[in-house]
Amino acid sequence: MPELRKDPVVGRWVIISTERARRPTDFAPDPVRPRATHCVFCAGSEDRTPPEITAGRAPGLPANGPGWTYRVVANKFPALRIEGDLEPEGEGMFDRMNGVGAHEVVIETPDHAATLATMPLDHVADVLGAYRERLRDLKKDPRFEYVLVFKNHGEAAGASLEHPHSQLIATPITPIMVVEELEGSARYWERHERCVWCDIVRQERRARGRVILEANGFIALAPFAPRFPFETWILPTRHRSAFEESEIDELRGLAAMLQEFLGRLNGILHEPPFNFMLHTAPLRDSPQEHFHWHLEVIPKLTRVAGFEWGSGFFINSVPPEAAAAALRGDDAPSG
Amino acid sequence: MPELRKDPVVGRWVIISTERARRPTDFAPDPVRPRATHCVFCAGSEDRTPPEITAGRAPGLPANGPGWTYRVVANKFPALRIEGDLEPEGEGMFDRMNGVGAHEVVIETPDHAATLATMPLDHVADVLGAYRERLRDLKKDPRFEYVLVFKNHGEAAGASLEHPHSQLIATPITPIMVVEELEGSARYWERHERCVWCDIVRQERRARGRVILEANGFIALAPFAPRFPFETWILPTRHRSAFEESEIDELRGLAAMLQEFLGRLNGILHEPPFNFMLHTAPLRDSPQEHFHWHLEVIPKLTRVAGFEWGSGFFINSVPPEAAAAALRGDDAPSG
Repeated sequence: MPELRKDPVVGRWVIISTERARRPTDFAPDPVRPRATHCVFCAGSEDRTPPEITAGRAPGLPANGPGWTYRVVANKFPALRIEGDLEPEGEGMFDRMNGVGAHEVVIETPDHAATLATMPLDHVADVLGAYRERLRDLKKDPRFEYVLVFKNHGEAAGASLEHPHSQLIATPITPIMVVEELEGSARYWERHERCVWCDIVRQERRARGRVILEANGFIALAPFAPRFPFETWILPTRHRSAFEESEIDELRGLAAMLQEFLGRLNGILHEPPFNFMLHTAPLRDSPQEHFHWHLEVIPKLTRVAGFEWGSGFFINSVPPEAAAAALRGDDAPSG
Repeated sequence: MPELRKDPVVGRWVIISTERARRPTDFAPDPVRPRATHCVFCAGSEDRTPPEITAGRAPGLPANGPGWTYRVVANKFPALRIEGDLEPEGEGMFDRMNGVGAHEVVIETPDHAATLATMPLDHVADVLGAYRERLRDLKKDPRFEYVLVFKNHGEAAGASLEHPHSQLIATPITPIMVVEELEGSARYWERHERCVWCDIVRQERRARGRVILEANGFIALAPFAPRFPFETWILPTRHRSAFEESEIDELRGLAAMLQEFLGRLNGILHEPPFNFMLHTAPLRDSPQEHFHWHLEVIPKLTRVAGFEWGSGFFINSVPPEAAAAALRGDDAPSG
């Protein structure tokens, strides 16, 4: 029997469609395996990108030259523009404002063929440190309410360049998906005076079935009502609302968790395309008792079609308990 | 300068990204051109589908045999199951219920290579009549709150079978996207005592720039804040909340509009994959003063990636004014 499940934070319903149940081996996405090639993000092409906003480089070496481990540059084709003011105005019954914001690219490594799953752990922690640094810096610009850090890995997941990179977009409006999480978690706090994500972590630790991994202050969970097969949330086990307040040991804990998780995902789904999105508290609101930052990882294995676009329901053919078991490496049930 | 625009009904913001502006010729989706072949939905294969729920067939001809123009059958791999009760229950802090619902397929024609854009007009009206009949019938089942009618056209839009078909899913919960429209339009009604969609139609008729076509009681608009390039809404120009109350002349007017619109879309985008989704009032709530049914058509030209999944913002590289001008057939601006 298929099951309808409700996300306890935002109230979104998903259909866990057992009639169409699929095992990891039933998915055959095109594997994402960057070839050893040379592109605009590779070492030696520093002059082909916009100038560095920040970078990881040995002291004394000049900016925009070689010797870097990661670079952050402005996106050459930005969705939003850094110059100007919002100038909100009406057009009859409609509302518009200038598309002011920041759109940056985090080039994660000089090595075209590296991935977050295979880089040295310290290097992954440095990339997370770059996210933290950019969040802290963009927070100083009073025009911005939010910074969304995200990664598109593989063409099917929307990456237009193969070289390992992530992105961030600073927006003058808090995104609706974060607003929904803030509102849902505030309602939960009013009733219980507890953080809903802290409660989820407690309940899932007791139940075990949807826990994938826990180590170094982080937990990876298959959420109760996942939109997508193998959707995974990574959370700090201590209550933390603002990613940018992470200490270096927390960045290292997250780096280790992310690397271990992506390694397992690659193992069972053969280097699938994926997206991840960091949900942290809005720039002006932190710290918050009711909001808990988390990283949402969604492998790109299926197509979103008319039913999802028209309803907001998602049909997921892999129960999260099965996804978590596969990612834990439990023996597969026979049949 | 990119622009941020807010949908006046649901409050969703989109980024109209002029930096990345694209013309129709910049999109190159795989054209959807069904080959003349024979499949399970073709004439002569009637015994290979679940039995007919309804069909268009000359009087006297037996069900599940030849001589039909359209057939409605249960989906062989349904997302929701028709048998049983909801039996809502908790799992600690989580909520679940049985996945009870209906999932039906409308086989639009016996001809594998036909499309809604090329079928005879009467035939398209008959398919729309089948939607109406199924809505009226499913409304009698007290377990259902909503019926979403939708179409996935082409593999990139999520169609697993090439043969022309649409689908409907009856759900025990009103989908969140419809709830958001109901809530937004109810707020608008409270302030203005007018239907927000009627007001949109009035304003757009005066402004002209986003009107694609108007004829036979229907209007096709590029919405002010479209999520996707060439997203189009088709609405009855008279206030109507429930699709299933459409009269036959309204079905014919919609058929003519849909056919003309799809013909133009095919012309400028070369038979693109697309989805359409019918938003009508929930089964128990109609008729309603503040809700106005409409058909949303979204060509599948771009990939939805991490930013959209993490934020709920959409980045659209085609301003709706440009999309409407192209679909009207205005002379393309030089350059």
